[in-house]
Amino acid sequence: MSSVHVELGERSYDVLVAANLIPNLGRHMAARMDARRAAIVTDENVGRLYLEPVRQALSDAEIDSVEIVVAPGEASKSFSTLERVVRELLAARLERSDIVIALGGGVVGDLAGFAAAITRRGMSLVQVATSLLAQVDSSVGGKTGINTPEGKNLVGAFFQPRLVLADTSTLDTLPPREFRAGYAEVAKYGLIDDADFFSWLEENRAAVFSGEDARGEAIRRSVAAKARVVATDEREAGTRALLNLGHTFGHALEAACNYDASRIIHGEGVAIGMAMAHRFSVHQGLCAPETAERVERHLAAAGLPTHMNSIPGRGFSTSELMDHIAQDKKVKAGRLTFILSRGIGEAFIAEDVAPHSVETFIAGELAAEPAPALQTGE
Amino acid sequence: MSSVHVELGERSYDVLVAANLIPNLGRHMAARMDARRAAIVTDENVGRLYLEPVRQALSDAEIDSVEIVVAPGEASKSFSTLERVVRELLAARLERSDIVIALGGGVVGDLAGFAAAITRRGMSLVQVATSLLAQVDSSVGGKTGINTPEGKNLVGAFFQPRLVLADTSTLDTLPPREFRAGYAEVAKYGLIDDADFFSWLEENRAAVFSGEDARGEAIRRSVAAKARVVATDEREAGTRALLNLGHTFGHALEAACNYDASRIIHGEGVAIGMAMAHRFSVHQGLCAPETAERVERHLAAAGLPTHMNSIPGRGFSTSELMDHIAQDKKVKAGRLTFILSRGIGEAFIAEDVAPHSVETFIAGELAAEPAPALQTGE
Repeated sequence: MSSVHVELGERSYDVLVAANLIPNLGRHMAARMDARRAAIVTDENVGRLYLEPVRQALSDAEIDSVEIVVAPGEASKSFSTLERVVRELLAARLERSDIVIALGGGVVGDLAGFAAAITRRGMSLVQVATSLLAQVDSSVGGKTGINTPEGKNLVGAFFQPRLVLADTSTLDTLPPREFRAGYAEVAKYGLIDDADFFSWLEENRAAVFSGEDARGEAIRRSVAAKARVVATDEREAGTRALLNLGHTFGHALEAACNYDASRIIHGEGVAIGMAMAHRFSVHQGLCAPETAERVERHLAAAGLPTHMNSIPGRGFSTSELMDHIAQDKKVKAGRLTFILSRGIGEAFIAEDVAPHSVETFIAGELAAEPAPALQTGE
Repeated sequence: MSSVHVELGERSYDVLVAANLIPNLGRHMAARMDARRAAIVTDENVGRLYLEPVRQALSDAEIDSVEIVVAPGEASKSFSTLERVVRELLAARLERSDIVIALGGGVVGDLAGFAAAITRRGMSLVQVATSLLAQVDSSVGGKTGINTPEGKNLVGAFFQPRLVLADTSTLDTLPPREFRAGYAEVAKYGLIDDADFFSWLEENRAAVFSGEDARGEAIRRSVAAKARVVATDEREAGTRALLNLGHTFGHALEAACNYDASRIIHGEGVAIGMAMAHRFSVHQGLCAPETAERVERHLAAAGLPTHMNSIPGRGFSTSELMDHIAQDKKVKAGRLTFILSRGIGEAFIAEDVAPHSVETFIAGELAAEPAPALQTGE
């Protein structure tokens, strides 16, 4: 078993990465915290597969548990579902020192994490990540939150878990589209500051997808990269913003699609956003066209979209996308901040990007030849 | 002008206590933070009196502002009002570095503070406290939150303001019942650990109520007491729990009254709760009956209730009160924690209080001679 330590002083914790971790969940918890009672928050899909094994693992360690099951999908990251989860935690008489277990992917992790952050002003949180995206990104680092019609993740808290389990066996049951989407975040770590990792991914992509040892290795390296950034800048005062590579464009596209999973899911937005960030960097004269092409080639090889035009139903307008971009949390005094790049592994934070140049770039992207519609099926 | 510093490292801030502070609000903000845009969150009553002066003060310092007005009263500390405030902050395009000004008493401070804590994962917060309770207690220390049917303040965040203004001139327009209720929290600081302050209050109560210099002095000493406790134990891992003297019983009574202000308001619950905590201490053989009587005498002289029986409409049952007490955030492994006392200024944290002894005590209180109904008018 591989363990990555996230060093945050008294808020430090471990991320365990290995196959078949869930049967020992209770034992791992008991070794690290006062664990008597827990609420398992999950969605219907993940619950069907893993609620029983998790319940059993807790029971083996003499931890009482209750369950809170929400609908799958981004729509559960809402005020109304948050209220429901919080009130169920209270109704079950869970105390401040009891544990909320977020069992699922990014949606469940963000929602249950936020609920744990605000219930009794902060309970204990354990993330049991069952999607690739959650394992390499959202379960680590303490960002929790919900969406509102104004935008994605605009409401939330920084709230670190006490333990994260990335049980790689759960990826065997993950729908291929979800795996591909999570892979966008894996590739992101290479693109930010690790050209070697990106080259390694170019060589080992097939093995990562087929579930060989390379898969565990890719996850471990991704988690270690994220842990390093979070330890340096927990609350995103500076360098942590690099992790948003592809996210400003990606979030705007998700919002413009009303978070409709039949059109786009988060990792797909990130893939398109990363490709756009590199093309925008070329457009700004910061980066060689070959770099942007290499990024597109790798994402496309992984089955990921790289252009807005490949989103089913497309038909976005520049002004609506600019409107969503203006809601980005990184906006300061009306100035836009983007993560741009000078080359593979050379991303940087560009503050004070002129809205006009973004607008011109987006208009150009929208006017481009329609790309073939994205396969969202499997 | 008197300034009390709350020492919390990088989260430190000042509490300014003086008459006529509001006209200089913008200037005080500009001296301490990057202040360009702000949202003023207030209630209809306070807004009628102080929205215009606050707007003017901000404009004088070239700070743009928008307003969010909620209904007065505890009912606004709800999920639905929280959602409304958060969404109005987002719709107004306030950024992470912009400022939420909580203009009002405890309800507005708790609600707007919580909204600031979770919007864009944390904006800047300034508390402009216009009630005695907010000035001496709720605006200082970073506890924010809302209520749910399960109980009071069970949902929220620790989130420190960047600046607190206690403009004592605003107390001249405060309804007398609200002033009395706030006074319960002033007396609390004497009862916790400052017998001298309690004696001083016994001698100067009339002057505090009539608005002479003693009023400012009482507020300053209260804020200083709170600042000391918060600096030692920001997140209530230990001694901060002392500030809950009277609150476990008080919250249970408020919940049992459905937060109906025609029956009870927070400070009245605290007054009854503090009297009960001292009588319970006597009941447990911890404290002399004379101490409890002295506490009751002082609170009654201030026009505050000291018995559950004086709540209009009374008719509580022991089991319903025990049920609310079990929801207290201090409960750990089912054991009750109360703040009890050995004498004036000798409060202490009693963990592991047997539920049975609390039950017997409450049953005895309920069986006692009905007290005259509390005057809630004015």
